[in-house]
Amino acid sequence: MALRRGALSALKKIYGKDRLKTTMEDRVCYAYDAVNTKYTPDAVVFPKSADEISQTLTLASKLGFPVVPRGSGTGTTGGSVAVEGGVVLVTTRMNQILDIDTDNFTAEVEPGVITGDLHRAVEANGLFYPPDPSSSGVSTLGGNVAECAGGPRAVKYGVTRDYVLGVEAVLATGEIIRAGVKTAKGVVGYDLTRLLVGSEGTLGVITRIWLKLLPLPAATATLKVSFTSMEAAADAVTRIIASGTLPRCVEYLDEASIACAQSIADLGLPEGCRSILLIEVDGSASEVAASLSKVVGIVEESGAMAVEEARNADEAKHLWTVRKKVSPALYLFGPDKINEDIVVPRSAIPKMVKKIEALKKDYGLPMVSFGHAGDGNIHFNVMIDKKDPAQKLRAEAVINELFDHTLALGGTLSGEHGVGITKRPYIGKEIGEKELELMRGIKKLFDPKGILNPAKIF
Amino acid sequence: MALRRGALSALKKIYGKDRLKTTMEDRVCYAYDAVNTKYTPDAVVFPKSADEISQTLTLASKLGFPVVPRGSGTGTTGGSVAVEGGVVLVTTRMNQILDIDTDNFTAEVEPGVITGDLHRAVEANGLFYPPDPSSSGVSTLGGNVAECAGGPRAVKYGVTRDYVLGVEAVLATGEIIRAGVKTAKGVVGYDLTRLLVGSEGTLGVITRIWLKLLPLPAATATLKVSFTSMEAAADAVTRIIASGTLPRCVEYLDEASIACAQSIADLGLPEGCRSILLIEVDGSASEVAASLSKVVGIVEESGAMAVEEARNADEAKHLWTVRKKVSPALYLFGPDKINEDIVVPRSAIPKMVKKIEALKKDYGLPMVSFGHAGDGNIHFNVMIDKKDPAQKLRAEAVINELFDHTLALGGTLSGEHGVGITKRPYIGKEIGEKELELMRGIKKLFDPKGILNPAKIF
Repeated sequence: MALRRGALSALKKIYGKDRLKTTMEDRVCYAYDAVNTKYTPDAVVFPKSADEISQTLTLASKLGFPVVPRGSGTGTTGGSVAVEGGVVLVTTRMNQILDIDTDNFTAEVEPGVITGDLHRAVEANGLFYPPDPSSSGVSTLGGNVAECAGGPRAVKYGVTRDYVLGVEAVLATGEIIRAGVKTAKGVVGYDLTRLLVGSEGTLGVITRIWLKLLPLPAATATLKVSFTSMEAAADAVTRIIASGTLPRCVEYLDEASIACAQSIADLGLPEGCRSILLIEVDGSASEVAASLSKVVGIVEESGAMAVEEARNADEAKHLWTVRKKVSPALYLFGPDKINEDIVVPRSAIPKMVKKIEALKKDYGLPMVSFGHAGDGNIHFNVMIDKKDPAQKLRAEAVINELFDHTLALGGTLSGEHGVGITKRPYIGKEIGEKELELMRGIKKLFDPKGILNPAKIF
Repeated sequence: MALRRGALSALKKIYGKDRLKTTMEDRVCYAYDAVNTKYTPDAVVFPKSADEISQTLTLASKLGFPVVPRGSGTGTTGGSVAVEGGVVLVTTRMNQILDIDTDNFTAEVEPGVITGDLHRAVEANGLFYPPDPSSSGVSTLGGNVAECAGGPRAVKYGVTRDYVLGVEAVLATGEIIRAGVKTAKGVVGYDLTRLLVGSEGTLGVITRIWLKLLPLPAATATLKVSFTSMEAAADAVTRIIASGTLPRCVEYLDEASIACAQSIADLGLPEGCRSILLIEVDGSASEVAASLSKVVGIVEESGAMAVEEARNADEAKHLWTVRKKVSPALYLFGPDKINEDIVVPRSAIPKMVKKIEALKKDYGLPMVSFGHAGDGNIHFNVMIDKKDPAQKLRAEAVINELFDHTLALGGTLSGEHGVGITKRPYIGKEIGEKELELMRGIKKLFDPKGILNPAKIF
């Protein structure tokens, strides 16, 4: 129990009985994120305002207990679990879309707004918020900003970072800051906005977000393309991108991912299909038609077995639903998942696919890969039973080899999941000692007592 | 003379005779940027490598002299002048385009590469680097990154920040760091890349840049649209943007800017034209045709006097050349220019235009405004004779009133020029005390002795 009794009674003054949870049942519910590890917090609070968060952090600074901000807990690197105990601060009750400005293409939201809710709200106004992490039906925008979430559409539209104009955040000291702008441009002072984006809840609790929106593309088209091998699919991706056509999504599923997808719904794939690409293009109707014909030509040249276009929005939605459920369906192959999201230059995907095939042979563990082929971002999973120490050791060796190969190809260890606790032991492979020292210095500047989401990143 | 004799002989060891300049003639050449202020450095050096820059900063740290990084000196806020003397470090000899990767749409460049040279080089490969500051024929990419340069195409494509994947930089201590990635995505550790972008040479000297490129749009079309009033033009801009069509450029010139432009070349404008818009759309040929017809419809509805499409690339280029020369031609109205680049939400441009008209009447000074109407970024200039103290005081009152109005409309003091020395007295209007304290803390962390580009920003 990291909380002193005085802390709980002070928290009760802020949150009342209803929004402070201290029973074991409630605490266990907030002991997990999408990583299968358990760190039970001492208390869980549900703030409704930046002011309540400020009071909480002022108290935490005074009494010295950890505060871990959390949205829906869909993170895949342990970013929102209370490794050192303390208070988990859940932002889901700060879920108002405060403004959708149809003249200036901006939105102002609270951190607990569900990503998918923003999608629907802006689309109803003819606008578009591109970032679409697979968990968008559940994930919060505050969490998306904290992790710099991506998603399939990043190929064409970039990641959360590219849409955050400004934020309000509460520092570990309880002070409330404003960073960035509400306008299309702004370069006054250092870029505290992008320093907070992707800082995984370690520099401040994001309490308000100003987002950039785009006009909603008039048309989209979705293709499902089947291949006899992962290599052929990877080759097609390289050719599509190099052609100058920029689909908004280019997702791939390997054979094991297809098995997972088929366990959810019959995808109607041809016999011998070992890999599929989901490709989506958007733009004006004529542009979509032109892109589609170009892409179809390229995949046919690359030896596609079958090319099918979704006949309507429902069919397209179904394909994406299946794609988004692949990750949870992976448990078909083992009770525990080690989940990575490495990125390599797009042209190196065929090399990485070969490496993954070699790892499967060398280590004999079930490995599943799928993800955002269009930007080189591969979701790689090793399925194991963590209760078996030998399997765990072998899986660690796989990850080490995978990471070294990724970096040798000019890649990075994470495209959108962040470091959290799971990649923390590996950060030194990618980030140099001096750079880590600067990051630690920034952490110290923002959070001198180290109470905000401790034991994460480095 | 801020340099001790030992410093000069040590610098000579690094640079030889040829690349170390200490005569008054040479030093005066590097005492200016595009702001009409003079701060003569004690010496000027021309490094050819990060290693030479590292040696210089190690020396500066030891002996305690200022080092001011500089590209072509096109900055408009005094970012590259040696306010406290010391050494101006000119990066123009580090001007190699090291790689244009046509598979992965990336470029690797040295900081001294001229922006326009990169444009030409990538376009020859069917690729596109969107940021196009008006000084792109002269400005360096290192300077663009340090200032987070924008330009007309930012409406659709964003600013320099959106294209920087990673950088190498030398810290004030002489240590060389690497930030960011070479891939399309990356979220490992804090975002040191965007912290360096726009830090105006105060956190590190950028020595290498990895840039994201796009496929080159197949077609463009450029329109010159004449209006009887600035208000009518501003209204047209609001309608174009709200229509969901996103031109890549929407520039406006007010009556005084038109006079400047006409002093360079006859624009063939109709009698009574008081404002023009330059609008450029891009995309596939069919998309360009569709956007063009939509935009023409809107400007005609908004009461345009004349709508002319550039008949070929030369005519379009001519229009842009004239537009880009407006800024230097402003001296038609006075020997000294106070130059601002405020941003307001796009829909507030008509309000800002009215405010500017009121300021002209109230203060009786020549004021010229033009700029990036599409993203609300207004280049506002007051022309004065600085030798007249009364004029200078009045101009300061204008700027104060302009800035207050900008912020009241939800805007920011700078869209692409930065703070430098000219906006330094005003930064507290926009950035809060706690936020400034964080920025000063970051500066101290990166540059404990305050030797790198001192007396800038805050």
